[in-house]
Amino acid sequence: MSENQVKILSGAPIAEAIKKEVAAEVKSLSENHGFCPCLAVVRVGEDPASAVYVGNKVKTSQELGLISEHHHLSAETTQDELLKVVNDLNERDDVDGILVQLPLPKQIDDKVILEAINPEKDVDGFHPINVGRLASGQKSLVPCTPAGVIEILKRYEIEIKGKHAVIVGRSNIVGKPMAQLLLQNDATVTICHSRTTNLPAVTSQADILVAAIGRAGFIRGEHIGNGAVVVDVGINNVSDVDFAHELFGEDELEKRLAVIEKRGSTLVGDVNPKEAKAKASAFTPVPGGVGLLTIAMLMKNTVDAAKMRRKI
Amino acid sequence: MSENQVKILSGAPIAEAIKKEVAAEVKSLSENHGFCPCLAVVRVGEDPASAVYVGNKVKTSQELGLISEHHHLSAETTQDELLKVVNDLNERDDVDGILVQLPLPKQIDDKVILEAINPEKDVDGFHPINVGRLASGQKSLVPCTPAGVIEILKRYEIEIKGKHAVIVGRSNIVGKPMAQLLLQNDATVTICHSRTTNLPAVTSQADILVAAIGRAGFIRGEHIGNGAVVVDVGINNVSDVDFAHELFGEDELEKRLAVIEKRGSTLVGDVNPKEAKAKASAFTPVPGGVGLLTIAMLMKNTVDAAKMRRKI
Repeated sequence: MSENQVKILSGAPIAEAIKKEVAAEVKSLSENHGFCPCLAVVRVGEDPASAVYVGNKVKTSQELGLISEHHHLSAETTQDELLKVVNDLNERDDVDGILVQLPLPKQIDDKVILEAINPEKDVDGFHPINVGRLASGQKSLVPCTPAGVIEILKRYEIEIKGKHAVIVGRSNIVGKPMAQLLLQNDATVTICHSRTTNLPAVTSQADILVAAIGRAGFIRGEHIGNGAVVVDVGINNVSDVDFAHELFGEDELEKRLAVIEKRGSTLVGDVNPKEAKAKASAFTPVPGGVGLLTIAMLMKNTVDAAKMRRKI
Repeated sequence: MSENQVKILSGAPIAEAIKKEVAAEVKSLSENHGFCPCLAVVRVGEDPASAVYVGNKVKTSQELGLISEHHHLSAETTQDELLKVVNDLNERDDVDGILVQLPLPKQIDDKVILEAINPEKDVDGFHPINVGRLASGQKSLVPCTPAGVIEILKRYEIEIKGKHAVIVGRSNIVGKPMAQLLLQNDATVTICHSRTTNLPAVTSQADILVAAIGRAGFIRGEHIGNGAVVVDVGINNVSDVDFAHELFGEDELEKRLAVIEKRGSTLVGDVNPKEAKAKASAFTPVPGGVGLLTIAMLMKNTVDAAKMRRKI
């Protein structure tokens, strides 16, 4: 039996291409319309992961020539105080995108804050009006991660139209908007979740399988049909060496064990990469796959928001 | 071979039960909170079907004790004039539900009007904010037809959780909100449409098959798995006698031919009833199925809107 030929859908070249396009667009807006899109990122408290994410967002904005603002508020900020910050940003004509980094401290209701952001500046695409526009097939700002998945599929020339796409996971941030986007692109779409009975029987029918569950290596060989395109949205830390042996083939086991040794854990998606490689025709690696697109899509959303609001 | 036993999921008793509940609720609101929910229906122009629909809505409102208003505007009404009517209804504190009957004359953009309705009074559930809330699993006003399908399934004690529901059709009015509601009820959900390849292979896996395509008798025996529950949302007119022979078994052919003879056509859903009867475990008839629920759900939405807006 010949070995399965699998194509690795690396996120890096796609993210780079999108960033280049955004930088060119920013330059053109500046030259032809006399303004530079501005992204305001709001962070509340001292969550260390949030600090890293926000830092990356601000840094990338600057690299691409966008104006970026970082509003860092104390962990004791009240909901009213945060609402005031959001409202000020809503009202400022120079601010094109507003992103409030989640999670927020427990005295603040996420939902209230997300609904307070002007939908025209909602570059995360989480405002109900944008969710509704997406669900109705209207032009809207789309959540970055599922939008990034579509970019990966399209730019690697993977046909979506008429294909059966199966999504595992029904979160508001990934699973559900992913379903809407795949449907808009004329896939037949199935959404599975924790209550799905006989999951492998459903997922193994997928031409395109999207895993967004949040459980390391949950999708095994039995879940994957021969020749499927597997998109892995999960990001999990694995520190267990025995589990690493289950997840990684000879091609990367040694490297992963060294990472665990050195840093205490290694990044793993929701798909078992060893078993995916044996059955899929193509798959997105973790790290280095879908995750790299998220910030690039945020930049694209900021430019899109600027153009839509300013009617360009 | 013994004949397939099929249960007919008649809409009438379910619609009656819901109307009774709504009437009781209206009485209780009047007695305990001193107000009576009010539904304002706006109709523009002389479309004869719209006149019948609106007439039925107003009549049912009155039967259940709701206050109902019928605003009938001329076919020449401009978009701004209609917007003014909607805004006046938005501002009136005594108006709980606003329904603008579609289709609208061509000088008016549906989307602009639907977005102008106060989402708290949007008893059709078509405003993007309500679409978004539904898609995010938040409390919202839900489109009447898919909400009615859920009532039929639940009140006939058809299990949804863990079942595979397949929806054929992806309209904003039925297919897409239907998918959200079935997903909220823990079904595994597949959405098919005109671009789906090998439709029978997908639909025949359904435990619950919802047909919302708008093509008479499109769903045939080959599309239906043995023992499936088939929900037929379609309403089409069939006047062709040969086609009637394909659609109806001996049990109803004669009656249907008499209807065609007398009225020129007979009502048929998107499912071939003769073939559905041979394979399904249960199905909703046309007429007399899902269609009967729509007005009942509109009444329920009006009462729900009144309670939500008045914080009861």
